[in-house]
Amino acid sequence: MTAIETPVRLKAVAAPDQPDVTPALEELYRGFEQELLVPLWTEIGDLMPAHPRSRAVPHLWRWDNLRELAEQAGHIVPVGRGGERRAIALANPSLGGRPFATPTLWAAIQYLMPGEDAPEHRHTQHAFRFVVEGSGVWTVVGGDAVPMNRGDFLPQAGWNWHAHHNATSEPMAWIDGLDIPLQYLTEAQFFEFGRDQISDAERITPERSRSEQLWAHPGLRPLSATATSAGSPLLNYKWEHTNAALKDQLQLERAARAQGHSGGTVEPGHAAVRYTNPQDGRDVLPTIRAEFHRVTRGAETAPIRETGSSVFQVFDGSGVITVGDRSWTASRGDLFVVPSWTPFSFRSEAGASDSDEGALDLFRFSDAPVFEALQLNRIQKDDA
Amino acid sequence: MTAIETPVRLKAVAAPDQPDVTPALEELYRGFEQELLVPLWTEIGDLMPAHPRSRAVPHLWRWDNLRELAEQAGHIVPVGRGGERRAIALANPSLGGRPFATPTLWAAIQYLMPGEDAPEHRHTQHAFRFVVEGSGVWTVVGGDAVPMNRGDFLPQAGWNWHAHHNATSEPMAWIDGLDIPLQYLTEAQFFEFGRDQISDAERITPERSRSEQLWAHPGLRPLSATATSAGSPLLNYKWEHTNAALKDQLQLERAARAQGHSGGTVEPGHAAVRYTNPQDGRDVLPTIRAEFHRVTRGAETAPIRETGSSVFQVFDGSGVITVGDRSWTASRGDLFVVPSWTPFSFRSEAGASDSDEGALDLFRFSDAPVFEALQLNRIQKDDA
Amino acid sequence: MTAIETPVRLKAVAAPDQPDVTPALEELYRGFEQELLVPLWTEIGDLMPAHPRSRAVPHLWRWDNLRELAEQAGHIVPVGRGGERRAIALANPSLGGRPFATPTLWAAIQYLMPGEDAPEHRHTQHAFRFVVEGSGVWTVVGGDAVPMNRGDFLPQAGWNWHAHHNATSEPMAWIDGLDIPLQYLTEAQFFEFGRDQISDAERITPERSRSEQLWAHPGLRPLSATATSAGSPLLNYKWEHTNAALKDQLQLERAARAQGHSGGTVEPGHAAVRYTNPQDGRDVLPTIRAEFHRVTRGAETAPIRETGSSVFQVFDGSGVITVGDRSWTASRGDLFVVPSWTPFSFRSEAGASDSDEGALDLFRFSDAPVFEALQLNRIQKDDA
Amino acid sequence: MTAIETPVRLKAVAAPDQPDVTPALEELYRGFEQELLVPLWTEIGDLMPAHPRSRAVPHLWRWDNLRELAEQAGHIVPVGRGGERRAIALANPSLGGRPFATPTLWAAIQYLMPGEDAPEHRHTQHAFRFVVEGSGVWTVVGGDAVPMNRGDFLPQAGWNWHAHHNATSEPMAWIDGLDIPLQYLTEAQFFEFGRDQISDAERITPERSRSEQLWAHPGLRPLSATATSAGSPLLNYKWEHTNAALKDQLQLERAARAQGHSGGTVEPGHAAVRYTNPQDGRDVLPTIRAEFHRVTRGAETAPIRETGSSVFQVFDGSGVITVGDRSWTASRGDLFVVPSWTPFSFRSEAGASDSDEGALDLFRFSDAPVFEALQLNRIQKDDA
Repeated sequence: MTAIETPVRLKAVAAPDQPDVTPALEELYRGFEQELLVPLWTEIGDLMPAHPRSRAVPHLWRWDNLRELAEQAGHIVPVGRGGERRAIALANPSLGGRPFATPTLWAAIQYLMPGEDAPEHRHTQHAFRFVVEGSGVWTVVGGDAVPMNRGDFLPQAGWNWHAHHNATSEPMAWIDGLDIPLQYLTEAQFFEFGRDQISDAERITPERSRSEQLWAHPGLRPLSATATSAGSPLLNYKWEHTNAALKDQLQLERAARAQGHSGGTVEPGHAAVRYTNPQDGRDVLPTIRAEFHRVTRGAETAPIRETGSSVFQVFDGSGVITVGDRSWTASRGDLFVVPSWTPFSFRSEAGASDSDEGALDLFRFSDAPVFEALQLNRIQKDDA
Repeated sequence: MTAIETPVRLKAVAAPDQPDVTPALEELYRGFEQELLVPLWTEIGDLMPAHPRSRAVPHLWRWDNLRELAEQAGHIVPVGRGGERRAIALANPSLGGRPFATPTLWAAIQYLMPGEDAPEHRHTQHAFRFVVEGSGVWTVVGGDAVPMNRGDFLPQAGWNWHAHHNATSEPMAWIDGLDIPLQYLTEAQFFEFGRDQISDAERITPERSRSEQLWAHPGLRPLSATATSAGSPLLNYKWEHTNAALKDQLQLERAARAQGHSGGTVEPGHAAVRYTNPQDGRDVLPTIRAEFHRVTRGAETAPIRETGSSVFQVFDGSGVITVGDRSWTASRGDLFVVPSWTPFSFRSEAGASDSDEGALDLFRFSDAPVFEALQLNRIQKDDA
Repeated sequence: MTAIETPVRLKAVAAPDQPDVTPALEELYRGFEQELLVPLWTEIGDLMPAHPRSRAVPHLWRWDNLRELAEQAGHIVPVGRGGERRAIALANPSLGGRPFATPTLWAAIQYLMPGEDAPEHRHTQHAFRFVVEGSGVWTVVGGDAVPMNRGDFLPQAGWNWHAHHNATSEPMAWIDGLDIPLQYLTEAQFFEFGRDQISDAERITPERSRSEQLWAHPGLRPLSATATSAGSPLLNYKWEHTNAALKDQLQLERAARAQGHSGGTVEPGHAAVRYTNPQDGRDVLPTIRAEFHRVTRGAETAPIRETGSSVFQVFDGSGVITVGDRSWTASRGDLFVVPSWTPFSFRSEAGASDSDEGALDLFRFSDAPVFEALQLNRIQKDDA
Repeated sequence: MTAIETPVRLKAVAAPDQPDVTPALEELYRGFEQELLVPLWTEIGDLMPAHPRSRAVPHLWRWDNLRELAEQAGHIVPVGRGGERRAIALANPSLGGRPFATPTLWAAIQYLMPGEDAPEHRHTQHAFRFVVEGSGVWTVVGGDAVPMNRGDFLPQAGWNWHAHHNATSEPMAWIDGLDIPLQYLTEAQFFEFGRDQISDAERITPERSRSEQLWAHPGLRPLSATATSAGSPLLNYKWEHTNAALKDQLQLERAARAQGHSGGTVEPGHAAVRYTNPQDGRDVLPTIRAEFHRVTRGAETAPIRETGSSVFQVFDGSGVITVGDRSWTASRGDLFVVPSWTPFSFRSEAGASDSDEGALDLFRFSDAPVFEALQLNRIQKDDA
């Protein structure tokens, strides 16, 4: 057999659970290398740890810095076919400089200048937009112009045609979340270019998308909508609804407390909703879960750890974020990642208020649906 | 063998597809009777027809008559333990005088006098309330006081404790729908008495129930609610949401029509929503489907027939209702039944308006989830 | 208002939980009758009992009597188009002489003379055959000739074309089970005549049907079978497999007992299997569950009660059957019914044997899938 | 801001779809690097290709080489706590020397010397064994000793305790398949050591495991088994059943062909089964699909491509394997990988036989359940 070039490199090491380092072992390892083989016994610690040890690390990105760089890019990087989007992605410090916020999630700031369009395309990657500030951009999904305003969450299941257009005289920035790393790792991606320009008819600026007119009524399914698609048919979860739901939970909590028991919220001072597909009550996207959390002033969440990773963005208020052994004081727009099986908790800035005023508001997205679909989800509430 | 008393009665008849009437056949039939046996060949026409031939017939009850009789009952029939409810049920004319609107559905008017309570109980029968007029009664479900106002739909899955209390100085009437006949036929019923009186704390009169505070936000699931129950956790589908959803569909239809195509509605001038469980997007109750239909002035629905039966109540407007070979002009409060596989259609009263004004509004409930769960559902759109 | 003829008859009675019998009440009741209305308070005891009180009663039919009458019918009642089948159904003594074994289930003995055919038809009613004795008939389902031998169970989901042909010189009797009463009550039935004669190519007598060649391999799904149909694609559950499964369970039980613990069986001496759809592991038919139970000599099952009704046939052995307050000694071929929420238990004839020899073998079918689909299933193990 | 060490490296390049290379762009990119950001426009071609372009390549490993190296390892590498298993994994040539057969799948040869034990452990990784030759090892899963013989397939869902013991005087080799790479990439893994030694009672050598006694009867579910676990409760899919199923399909094909039509097989001369969980008819493991394919002599499969990757092992016969632009003549034991969206086909060695004799038999496993659960599955039949 002629020696081939092989990427396998095996090193016999003297260790309690390793075979004795002998010439025979060395010869065996050379044979493995040549045959493109790797033994379990040298890799098991890395591949099969007692619990997940993420390759990613906790990290926080400051919104001010992101927006400033995005604005610079707005002036020197055009948006057009090929590059497709002026999107700038978070690169976890320990994932080799790749644009992966976590091993499965993509998070980017996207920036559109006044009057600009981002051309139409579609891809199997599931996506969403979340708006932490500003307004004026519409995302056109399959011909439906969807407005984007502060607090809005816009899911968009894979393989839907979509474009963006900024209809105003101000630039606008927002957050894109996608499962790009997951589909990159599993090798599932398809992509197609659409029209370079959307039509004038789509360049309208309605206050509500058609999808909202059909689907944004609580518990009511339009009989004219028949087929069930992969993701949510509701293309905008407007802030007014999210905010109202959180206020209601905190009001229920106060009413319950007045009667001496708990209720309404996840834990004291911690209201939370999950964005769901009104067709089936499940996650809005097959691979991405999205939630909104509100922690009232002075409240603190109990540490928790879960399999799978998350990206959070502070929507309002400020507080101390603790992820693993890292801790930051964060405020509006700041983004941070929680790697798999890393405990995390939040403490909202102290204050006199028992009301919703000044609460720490957090948008969250994660890969939880992947873990649930594959029956790999685990959760553990740690003692504080 | 001694002859026993047997309910079986067989009559040999001379007919093309029947065996020859002979003494041997007569003797055989006597043997069948004695052994409690019935041959298929004498019954097949009734039991296995080419298509469903309902034992029920189309019928319409006038709301004015129902309410008047209910009011009389209000004065002479007390509400209390044993009788449980001042509910008066529709009896389909061809179902032997039994209180069955259709073979599977119960529909009744319930009436509560000022200050009256209906005592707490629970049962496996799935139930709902629908309010065509009035207000002032609260249904207390598991301690949650749910208000009832015109247009509200209140589902209540089986085995939940519930009571009613009229907190006002006016009597109030509404419609109860249950699957009593179905559970009677399949023999599945359980029933328990609860407290004779609800507590003062439950005798509150909130504008929104706790269930609404948690669940009546479109596409938003409270993270504090974990378990999935049999039916909808949302105990009131308020009229404002239903009405808004129907208006939106008709507006979408008008916008689509302006661009030369159709959309938004089920058919021209016909908007419709299904009440769904926000946990899973399915029907609000395991055995009952509920919908609301709006037919704009001058519009007409295409005849359709389905397996399973329905009860409709006119909520507003007026029009011509056609069910099988029956036809009525109906208006607010009138109730009518559509037996299985009977074609039906509606024509809203003509008028100049293209708007929602004066539309024929119809509440509907049916046994469709039963047919779908058993894979017995069929639908056929007939040519007009 | 002119008085119409109404089937409603209301009688005011003096009772603790009934309204006072007064002229006003009588007048009210006359109004109800006239308007086709029935109050809840006079009916609630019947319609909403504390627990199911079946209209059916326990009853046992002797196989010898059934077969003798069927044989007589074989000589004087022809099989042909119109009557369709020489099937003779069990009529529960308290269901008014209707051919309903229970409120939801049909059970009949079918009899085919040498060389006879039963013509092809299809219907929405779900059906099966079970063979307690004999052989020689093939059921042709969609062109697939399925043999029928002692112990075989042949499910056949609704709307499949099917015919029977007796290819031998002996008559043959077997049991048909269908959901005829359920579909009659819910009014879901469709029926179509097929060919009067099956083709010669279908008149073959294979030992195994094509369905078995594709599907009767444990845990193995043929990749050539793509679509998922309503019921099981496996058209014959041959006795050899059922018997082997029961023997294995009892062997596991003995092995476990030897080690001082329990296992393998439902309870000591009681092995049981459910026939399932290999496509999804669920019941073989959407509305009918089928099982086979083996109770070893001297063993006794614990009393149990369930919502829903069952029909059992003794396949082999003999023993004492207790259903509610009835009790019979039954042996091969005898059929009996268990009404809803009626406790039942079996005691196999005593004997020296700890082996499978002489065990009481029981085939069972029930409406359990209906109750589970509608979330109406309950079960209760009673103390003996 | 102080410059941090960053793994991000961005290079401005002159290209049609890239921004102009200017000092401003260079400055922007330095800012991105410093802030741990990566733009989409430089990465989109790699991350969002028009269709999956696998990082893995097609490759074939010769069984003779694998077994020889495994045998050497048998003499110099002990099996014990820490290393856990004498398993040697296939390393795809283009995956950087990591022990990943494909980006999601692990495939290894495991080797156990006479009398050896592999210690008990459990892990969330889903696993199976497949036996291409030999016998004599039992895998003890949760106390159930499961025999391993040529052609047997043994799935084992995550988090079950398991050990191996070689009860004979011969060494034995077999194939392990796991989702190690997938769980490594998504970071979902948990692992626990069990007992160092299994008990003597587990060191038995039954011909059938308890799991087979309960579950290896076609379409029959033991009523004593209640809970539904994550993967298949059937721990051995014995060769006799797989072989019989394939023979039956080919016999059906021949019978159909004699009547002038097709049927029974996937395509002419190509029989195939999927191993399924008898509880639900779904894949045996949440993340791994397993199948067995038989291609009769002279037959050829049509090229096909799918999202997701597979590993095949030739079980018997020989033929030409084509994967993408690679092609090999393969025979018993040879293993090869099919990367995502790479077309593949097989041609069985020509021969006179129309029978099953000498057919090319292929065992296959893949990550298809992952793609289906995440709705990322696509399939395309290419023209030959």
